[in-house]
Amino acid sequence: MLKTLFGRHPAGSSHPVSPATRLREMAGSTSADKAAAMLIGPAALMQLSQDDARIVVSYMRPHRIPQGTTFIREGDADKTDFMLLILDGEVTVETIVVSRSEPITLTVLGPGRLIGEMGLLDGEPRSASCTATTDVRGAILTREALGKLLDDDPRTAAKLMMAISLRIAVRLRESTDKLKMYTQLTQAMQQEINRPTVL
Amino acid sequence: MLKTLFGRHPAGSSHPVSPATRLREMAGSTSADKAAAMLIGPAALMQLSQDDARIVVSYMRPHRIPQGTTFIREGDADKTDFMLLILDGEVTVETIVVSRSEPITLTVLGPGRLIGEMGLLDGEPRSASCTATTDVRGAILTREALGKLLDDDPRTAAKLMMAISLRIAVRLRESTDKLKMYTQLTQAMQQEINRPTVL
Repeated sequence: MLKTLFGRHPAGSSHPVSPATRLREMAGSTSADKAAAMLIGPAALMQLSQDDARIVVSYMRPHRIPQGTTFIREGDADKTDFMLLILDGEVTVETIVVSRSEPITLTVLGPGRLIGEMGLLDGEPRSASCTATTDVRGAILTREALGKLLDDDPRTAAKLMMAISLRIAVRLRESTDKLKMYTQLTQAMQQEINRPTVL
Repeated sequence: MLKTLFGRHPAGSSHPVSPATRLREMAGSTSADKAAAMLIGPAALMQLSQDDARIVVSYMRPHRIPQGTTFIREGDADKTDFMLLILDGEVTVETIVVSRSEPITLTVLGPGRLIGEMGLLDGEPRSASCTATTDVRGAILTREALGKLLDDDPRTAAKLMMAISLRIAVRLRESTDKLKMYTQLTQAMQQEINRPTVL
């Protein structure tokens, strides 16, 4: 399932490789360049430099997901040890609400967005299901690779963690906005329900 | 406003101080010990050790907030450069929804919870208002101090960022659960509104 196109020394390698060597071996890979560019944005206050991002990418593995594949399932407590950076394509994030047969779409994520970063950190069961709605090309960072990056280059690991925190924070802000909207909506609906019927 | 009780060398000091010196100077402070213990929990996969947490605390400043003080205001774009770890007391997080005169409580946070960590990272306007509903004792980490920790001890900074990410992730999971609940609720209310009135 996991190929190792970003450089010749993926995180699983048994012999130590310096970040500089990793960078040299990754030279010329446009996928790696794209992954690095996407790790840098969106604007953060303490940002990964281009070189930092390329070091992170040298610990990642390219991954392709065919259209229609549900690759993360809500409630799944296994396989929570990786996150995916979307390079190309679109992923629908859905939740199964008990009273409905159709899943409800929480959000649609495109290039530059992370998936599974919360599970990578806390190992909790997946909070939603993710389905590739187009063919998806991405880059995977496993928990093991993150641990190795922390050992090899703690400063870059720290800046990566800031980038990840920032993305989780962006999603939390979006979610808070939706909650505010729902609070208003249910209040308006409650008034409608309570309105006396004029005969 | 900011006192410097955790050790004699707060982040603003101009001369460099080693993490070991900071730890030594903080010895015997029960507030510092409490702050360190609270930074460690909840269970993370790559956790701050007791010593890591004490190093982080040596970059923080104690802060007291009297009951009834609204110390973060929704929409405020200034003063987003700090986060607060609650050591004692309770903080109500509220949002002002346009159609109501009373603010709506989003959540109540107690000891061990972080406030303002998103603003610390992205500098965006505050998404909610925070009011101390009891006297609050806390520890503040400024963006400047976080930058200094990143320079002095990147490995500890990386583990702190993992702890912060994890807390944001916990809040995002809570928020996602609430959104699922609201989705069901509005659906049930919609059915109630659509039900034909039987005369």
